[in-house]
Amino acid sequence: MTRESDGPAVAQLELGAVLSALADPHRRRIVTELVIAPEDVERSCSSFQAPVSKSTMTHHFKVLSDSGLIRTTDYGNRKGVTLRRTDLNTRFPGLLDLLASEATP
Amino acid sequence: MTRESDGPAVAQLELGAVLSALADPHRRRIVTELVIAPEDVERSCSSFQAPVSKSTMTHHFKVLSDSGLIRTTDYGNRKGVTLRRTDLNTRFPGLLDLLASEATP
Repeated sequence: MTRESDGPAVAQLELGAVLSALADPHRRRIVTELVIAPEDVERSCSSFQAPVSKSTMTHHFKVLSDSGLIRTTDYGNRKGVTLRRTDLNTRFPGLLDLLASEATP
Repeated sequence: MTRESDGPAVAQLELGAVLSALADPHRRRIVTELVIAPEDVERSCSSFQAPVSKSTMTHHFKVLSDSGLIRTTDYGNRKGVTLRRTDLNTRFPGLLDLLASEATP
């Protein structure tokens, strides 16, 4: 069964929650990788590398999803994530550009 | 004796520290008030209202100063704060505009 996470609607996106989510370097790196990707394709959660445990990564994806930065889809045996680029650019213009400008090559 | 706080130089401003500082609603409100002020005049720390203790406010000003969002000047009997607007606009273009757009009238 495929199940999409219900993050906040675009009008309910809160800057405080988004900034808190992005304050963590691992979470910021996940979002930045999605921001600078040439295409907005869905990525599998397991494709992100970080020197933290799997359960910590699960927590990070939950925080990102709850804040509205990403949308996660549960396929049962794996999870996919996409950036909510349009919603974020609508609600917080300039935020994703700021993250992109900080991306280390 | 007047003493200016030594925050990070503009090249040393870190997005993570700035986002962490802004994730707190009281700290974000202090910065937003400075961002939307018609002129960049120095304000006294005590002119900011928040439903928290004086020691908590002192902590908030320290976090803001350490992250490089504000510059504080200690006049002995009072402290003044100014926004590092030029430095922030140079280092993180769009960040202050984002805060201004979230300001509640």
